[in-house]
Amino acid sequence: MNIYDMKEECGIFGIYGHPEAANMAYLGLYALQHRGQEGAGICSSDGRNLHLEKSLGYVSEIFNEKRLRRLLGESAIGHNRYSTAGGNAQKNVQPIMVNSSLGSLSIAHNGNLTNAGVLKETLERDGAIFQSNADSEVIVHLIAHSTARTAEEKVIEAVNQIHGAFSLLILKEDELIAVRDSFGVRPMCIGTLDGAYVVASETCAFDLIGATYIRDVEPGEMVVINKNGINSIRAIRSAMRAHCAFEFIYFSRPDSYIFGGTNVHRIRKALGRQLAIESYVDADVVIPVPDSGVAATIGYANQSIIPFDFGLVRNHYIGRTFIEPKQNIRHFGVKIKLNPVQSILRGKRVVVVDDSIVRGTTSKKIVKMLREVGKAAEIHVRISSPCTISPCFYGIDTPTRNELIASTHQVEEIRKYLTADSLSYLSFDGLNSVLPNPDDYCYACFNSKYPISFIREEPAQMELFLA
Amino acid sequence: MNIYDMKEECGIFGIYGHPEAANMAYLGLYALQHRGQEGAGICSSDGRNLHLEKSLGYVSEIFNEKRLRRLLGESAIGHNRYSTAGGNAQKNVQPIMVNSSLGSLSIAHNGNLTNAGVLKETLERDGAIFQSNADSEVIVHLIAHSTARTAEEKVIEAVNQIHGAFSLLILKEDELIAVRDSFGVRPMCIGTLDGAYVVASETCAFDLIGATYIRDVEPGEMVVINKNGINSIRAIRSAMRAHCAFEFIYFSRPDSYIFGGTNVHRIRKALGRQLAIESYVDADVVIPVPDSGVAATIGYANQSIIPFDFGLVRNHYIGRTFIEPKQNIRHFGVKIKLNPVQSILRGKRVVVVDDSIVRGTTSKKIVKMLREVGKAAEIHVRISSPCTISPCFYGIDTPTRNELIASTHQVEEIRKYLTADSLSYLSFDGLNSVLPNPDDYCYACFNSKYPISFIREEPAQMELFLA
Amino acid sequence: MNIYDMKEECGIFGIYGHPEAANMAYLGLYALQHRGQEGAGICSSDGRNLHLEKSLGYVSEIFNEKRLRRLLGESAIGHNRYSTAGGNAQKNVQPIMVNSSLGSLSIAHNGNLTNAGVLKETLERDGAIFQSNADSEVIVHLIAHSTARTAEEKVIEAVNQIHGAFSLLILKEDELIAVRDSFGVRPMCIGTLDGAYVVASETCAFDLIGATYIRDVEPGEMVVINKNGINSIRAIRSAMRAHCAFEFIYFSRPDSYIFGGTNVHRIRKALGRQLAIESYVDADVVIPVPDSGVAATIGYANQSIIPFDFGLVRNHYIGRTFIEPKQNIRHFGVKIKLNPVQSILRGKRVVVVDDSIVRGTTSKKIVKMLREVGKAAEIHVRISSPCTISPCFYGIDTPTRNELIASTHQVEEIRKYLTADSLSYLSFDGLNSVLPNPDDYCYACFNSKYPISFIREEPAQMELFLA
Amino acid sequence: MNIYDMKEECGIFGIYGHPEAANMAYLGLYALQHRGQEGAGICSSDGRNLHLEKSLGYVSEIFNEKRLRRLLGESAIGHNRYSTAGGNAQKNVQPIMVNSSLGSLSIAHNGNLTNAGVLKETLERDGAIFQSNADSEVIVHLIAHSTARTAEEKVIEAVNQIHGAFSLLILKEDELIAVRDSFGVRPMCIGTLDGAYVVASETCAFDLIGATYIRDVEPGEMVVINKNGINSIRAIRSAMRAHCAFEFIYFSRPDSYIFGGTNVHRIRKALGRQLAIESYVDADVVIPVPDSGVAATIGYANQSIIPFDFGLVRNHYIGRTFIEPKQNIRHFGVKIKLNPVQSILRGKRVVVVDDSIVRGTTSKKIVKMLREVGKAAEIHVRISSPCTISPCFYGIDTPTRNELIASTHQVEEIRKYLTADSLSYLSFDGLNSVLPNPDDYCYACFNSKYPISFIREEPAQMELFLA
Repeated sequence: MNIYDMKEECGIFGIYGHPEAANMAYLGLYALQHRGQEGAGICSSDGRNLHLEKSLGYVSEIFNEKRLRRLLGESAIGHNRYSTAGGNAQKNVQPIMVNSSLGSLSIAHNGNLTNAGVLKETLERDGAIFQSNADSEVIVHLIAHSTARTAEEKVIEAVNQIHGAFSLLILKEDELIAVRDSFGVRPMCIGTLDGAYVVASETCAFDLIGATYIRDVEPGEMVVINKNGINSIRAIRSAMRAHCAFEFIYFSRPDSYIFGGTNVHRIRKALGRQLAIESYVDADVVIPVPDSGVAATIGYANQSIIPFDFGLVRNHYIGRTFIEPKQNIRHFGVKIKLNPVQSILRGKRVVVVDDSIVRGTTSKKIVKMLREVGKAAEIHVRISSPCTISPCFYGIDTPTRNELIASTHQVEEIRKYLTADSLSYLSFDGLNSVLPNPDDYCYACFNSKYPISFIREEPAQMELFLA
Repeated sequence: MNIYDMKEECGIFGIYGHPEAANMAYLGLYALQHRGQEGAGICSSDGRNLHLEKSLGYVSEIFNEKRLRRLLGESAIGHNRYSTAGGNAQKNVQPIMVNSSLGSLSIAHNGNLTNAGVLKETLERDGAIFQSNADSEVIVHLIAHSTARTAEEKVIEAVNQIHGAFSLLILKEDELIAVRDSFGVRPMCIGTLDGAYVVASETCAFDLIGATYIRDVEPGEMVVINKNGINSIRAIRSAMRAHCAFEFIYFSRPDSYIFGGTNVHRIRKALGRQLAIESYVDADVVIPVPDSGVAATIGYANQSIIPFDFGLVRNHYIGRTFIEPKQNIRHFGVKIKLNPVQSILRGKRVVVVDDSIVRGTTSKKIVKMLREVGKAAEIHVRISSPCTISPCFYGIDTPTRNELIASTHQVEEIRKYLTADSLSYLSFDGLNSVLPNPDDYCYACFNSKYPISFIREEPAQMELFLA
Repeated sequence: MNIYDMKEECGIFGIYGHPEAANMAYLGLYALQHRGQEGAGICSSDGRNLHLEKSLGYVSEIFNEKRLRRLLGESAIGHNRYSTAGGNAQKNVQPIMVNSSLGSLSIAHNGNLTNAGVLKETLERDGAIFQSNADSEVIVHLIAHSTARTAEEKVIEAVNQIHGAFSLLILKEDELIAVRDSFGVRPMCIGTLDGAYVVASETCAFDLIGATYIRDVEPGEMVVINKNGINSIRAIRSAMRAHCAFEFIYFSRPDSYIFGGTNVHRIRKALGRQLAIESYVDADVVIPVPDSGVAATIGYANQSIIPFDFGLVRNHYIGRTFIEPKQNIRHFGVKIKLNPVQSILRGKRVVVVDDSIVRGTTSKKIVKMLREVGKAAEIHVRISSPCTISPCFYGIDTPTRNELIASTHQVEEIRKYLTADSLSYLSFDGLNSVLPNPDDYCYACFNSKYPISFIREEPAQMELFLA
Repeated sequence: MNIYDMKEECGIFGIYGHPEAANMAYLGLYALQHRGQEGAGICSSDGRNLHLEKSLGYVSEIFNEKRLRRLLGESAIGHNRYSTAGGNAQKNVQPIMVNSSLGSLSIAHNGNLTNAGVLKETLERDGAIFQSNADSEVIVHLIAHSTARTAEEKVIEAVNQIHGAFSLLILKEDELIAVRDSFGVRPMCIGTLDGAYVVASETCAFDLIGATYIRDVEPGEMVVINKNGINSIRAIRSAMRAHCAFEFIYFSRPDSYIFGGTNVHRIRKALGRQLAIESYVDADVVIPVPDSGVAATIGYANQSIIPFDFGLVRNHYIGRTFIEPKQNIRHFGVKIKLNPVQSILRGKRVVVVDDSIVRGTTSKKIVKMLREVGKAAEIHVRISSPCTISPCFYGIDTPTRNELIASTHQVEEIRKYLTADSLSYLSFDGLNSVLPNPDDYCYACFNSKYPISFIREEPAQMELFLA
């Protein structure tokens, strides 16, 4: 998949009780950079005051020794944000830090609320003032307006009013709170490091700093970490689980262990194997669309015993902006990232494996380039997930329903559009057969069954759904 | 006076109904740059949305054509902020823009509230969340929390709760509101330009854009400008006036007309004349401490018939930071800005005129440098205002009471400290004789009589007063 | 191999007769970014004047539309430079542009001269002034000091005085000249694009812009391109060829065709196959050190029929600088780039393939991390080239001889140092069996036989050799 | 005069034998900022190596503690450059540093050569390569090409070949050389500081660092400062002197002592007095065009006994670029810098004094603004120098002859153009009567008598002269 087709909305990291809290948060965010490239921030606490540093850009660009030194204290939370269009993005970078009757407070949120609009209206009627359009700001106001006595009770009151997906970190002067929605949509895990506690979106953040994974924050659980240690509270009643299946298919890093400790790369390879079982085709070579299709391609190659190779070379120096020549260059948009290797492809029957098709435009460019530049004889496209037919309302930035090619076209129509010799998607049953506890997942993007209710009146959501 | 001794807290500018509203605001702020050099911002309205651009730095550095083009619409407000120490200054730059039940709203505030702490506490208890430490944010919350029906009524309700000095501009999608505290502490005037209305701290902002001064916004008056024209409302009951006398003595630009249309330069020259009447001394030359002492020096020279000259040359390329050599250079701190001209001073009896003495350290350096480098025979210091003995709580950033040399020392002690041959301040009666309607001014910094009550418990204020 | 162990010194690109010459040069340099990441520049000619833009940084950071628009004209040359330590690197960025009796002239050089010091001394005795320490500047002076009549003759005179490796592009107002040393050490190829001529270090630069590869610039050949078309001149007598074998092993991009049109990826895969033939070991999985070892690993896996997998996940968001925590993190230096996937490695007998070992420090960290974090049972290191025992004087930035671990240690000693269960290098004969026309290569880094003489007195060279 | 009308080309500063050489150079350049605002640089020597830091911008922007720390050593030279239009200005910033047979060498040059073109051609024929268009680079080449034995002799040989104006500083690893052209066109003085020697364009640079003025570098003199102390050599035979009269009239800082130790402010005041004697007019107030006209205005006021006042207030926050509104604002170009004070001017007969008129456009705007905005009744323009009728070839950036209004118009025509009630220039005899040793000056801009020959064929010069 192309990074411009779907975007993870965020990565979060928290730590409590470590002498280099901010440095560890910096490394954790660096390991989670794939979950958001627009901007990042870290808020630390020295026990009396919070310190905040955040900007647009990559983690390694934003932080230098000077900025890290300013982040005093032994606890910290951090946030990576995805890339949106538009100008005033600066103010949407998290963590959000505010002063309220609770004292100073900062928050980092991964996910998306489905009733943010309604809540915002009510809060504004009560005199609340909003600084940004981020739904995460609604959570802060709910906490501040709560009439409960303690910080923990205020947070519980707040998270019981919000609907949607949220993996949430809250930092106060003297305490770190982690809460996850009752469905467990986005991943969130706990670890330890030299006696300190760490919380992160994925375990790859633990690996870099040498922390040890303990367990996930459970759906509906609130974990409070302070000088008394770690304390678990059931914050939200939880009926069913609805983990995002796309975290396994595309979003999480292959070296991470998510949703109860299952390795992402292992699942992807199994999806590729299953895909080869379902839709084997006689061919000379099987190649991935790098990097997202690599693991499934290895599975496909192992199962089909067709040789694996890198028929598309990826350029790793892609900058954020790119100046196109006025003169038309064939396949330019995709060639800037991928170049076919003729010595592998010329005259060959090629299976090309990708994790998904969103709009279809990139896939079409790849197929045409493999044929015209790579001189492949046959091109068989294999997709390691079912048809993507519906948008996500739980924290993934997808196009509208009408832009999803599989929502409006049959597989054979898509094949013709791609100009491929054959096209197969993984079956829904095939996906189910690979995932552990397959009933615990949200498959809304494949079958339009949305496990979390949302308010049909919210225009942003309806726009996606009806357009 | 040295810019590091006292600092004006802000300059504001507003315009309604002009095709180049943002450009005019930019020029207005440029003309008001002397009122605040830390940062600046402009918020414009295109009738449906507000657009905001603000940063740290000088007006001419912050705005370029691209940023101005983003500020769409025919109305705008702008704000210059003074330079404070400390890190997180970015978030304190105004205008402040928020979303609330009133829709989008932005605010620019010149002045200082004396009951901000108390109000903030109450608001936080009601669930309000604060982004900054600026007392101006309190005003926004009061407006948002008001249960009044219309925007105008909400503003009136809010400004009746705040104590202190405020010249306030509020921009909504479709209207510009200007309010001034009931004492009229800071200047604020109204003008017209090609059928549009403009509001500014000083008339020098009108001059640059070619606008015509109409009158001041009256103390306690609220002026509402929208598509129906201009409308005046008595917003706050007003008992007495308390214009800041220091606006005439030091802060306002000499070419401005303030507090009912009196020219600043004319008053300064009159102060100098009065000073010469009160404390003539036989001398060969009278020189100003540039630039703040120039007008009073001309008055002194005219009255005394002692020749005027520029015995101290000012370097106009002073950057924001300056690297000091490790090796001690005599008079370095003041020499970086001012250099004595021996050909004027050598062997002469010199009168040097300045507008005020705050801590006394700079004045002492100047006297010593005039004698040692300039080779002056006698140095007579003349100050065109009375002794500054008390801090300001109404929008001027002053040192604490104990740091004000005249608060703790007699004039003769100060003279000895400065190593001057003689020292005279303008008498309080002399100041009164020069100002029009002298009872309409605040002289708290000279006589400790604070016309606006303030809450003794507010620690920031007490710190200044007692320290 | 680690990018910090050896560094290609440059990539070059030239174009003549294209309406978007500078844009094409920009794209060409972008495709050649792997050959140099320190800085880049483009010099264009509009027929009357040369225009130059160059800076430190990545190609995609340096050039924006504004800078490209300034590069007027239909011919251009560009240069990518590698990353060195030290401060004044700015002035070493190429192209170098000068004014001389020939008019304006710019030059882009890939390679390294072995007699630069001696030539520089002589030139300085004749009054020459040097701006930089780059040996490329020597070439410009030789051209300027030549007494020959035409530009072509001056260049021929100059290149016959220099020893070493050079692929050279020279741009004049009205002509583009390409010359290659008589040994053909660095690659350099010619192509066409819409009637224009292009010259580049590697063919991957042609692929991106849609140009067609014609042939290499031959060793010792000078190609002159101007309004009369393309003209070939034998500039230097050529006795033997000495292509850099490491271009195939590591430096060139896998999708390029170099040294007479041989695909790099194909050679690397063949090296991996040969390596499996020579040093098969019974194992459960074979994994690459990404990205440089990938192609050889595929070859090894195919030949050995051991399953291929990605046991090390690479982080692609590596910034230029990285802040290390004070607290020691195990394997930090390598973990910032690579993370082992336990689900692939745990309890397995693992073959890990890399292209070469330079200092050995990175390889050791990888082996230890595979064992400690990845929980591999056995680790067998396989290197797809012979032992690297000698430094390069022809354009690759290598450590000194003493720092090359294979120069001072036996293979078994290296194995012990790496803590690997077994270690095998490709044999020299094995390398020969894979390369086409194996006598046409320089193998100095493997066998210390330097095909191009160099002056033993040059201290920089001796330092490398003797240290 | 307006800074855009004429520009001083440079300021220079050198120091030998001081532990904080670079810091002192930084302060010296800061004090000389008025002589060049485009860019600045410092080159220091630690006895073995030269270190260079230079950039576009103001001195206080360019240098920070980090850059100063890199400038190791106890000797240094620095250079301020004036502001030109055009892009590639970076490479023209001085000092110029090169490597040659003499070792490392850097140079800072104030002035302008009249035979640079001819010399450059000859040098290029001998193989020299030029990096910039600066005539200063010619001097470096002449030194490098000299066949003389010692550095001193090489410099002497070089400066005897160049014609024009030059105050020159040369820094070698172990020595500082200062040379001045035989006419002494630009000022250059020597001082001491704590046992170290300092050389600067003007004495105001000495004042800031606390150095003591000794004497000028004499016309034609070369001063060599090294570990053996200071040594004077007659380098160029000197027939007559030709100090630039405009240094007194406009360019030098009023607090400087130049051309044998005469104070600039004193001369300017005397010019104003003489002007009042020659062209008294009955008036109510005399005002300067700030800042350049201030000193002469004081002289005029003293002599005429008409009251002095500041009728034009200058805005000191002028940035480098300024965005003009689309809508026409009257007098905008001049109002951005100067604002008339009606309370001083209304209904008054006003004498306004400036140092010179170049194109006349700014003066016209000032006159119209004084009348229309300031409401002055009569406006009498007085100029404290004779009519400027010819361009300068000796280091001042002037418009072409045809652009100089007094070159093509009679005084009465100029008066009409300015819309002034009267206009008088200082007479040539009046100027002579004020300057000490009046025959020692260059008055070419007033009388077209160029004391230094120049080659009529040089196109840049002819362009100025004939256009």
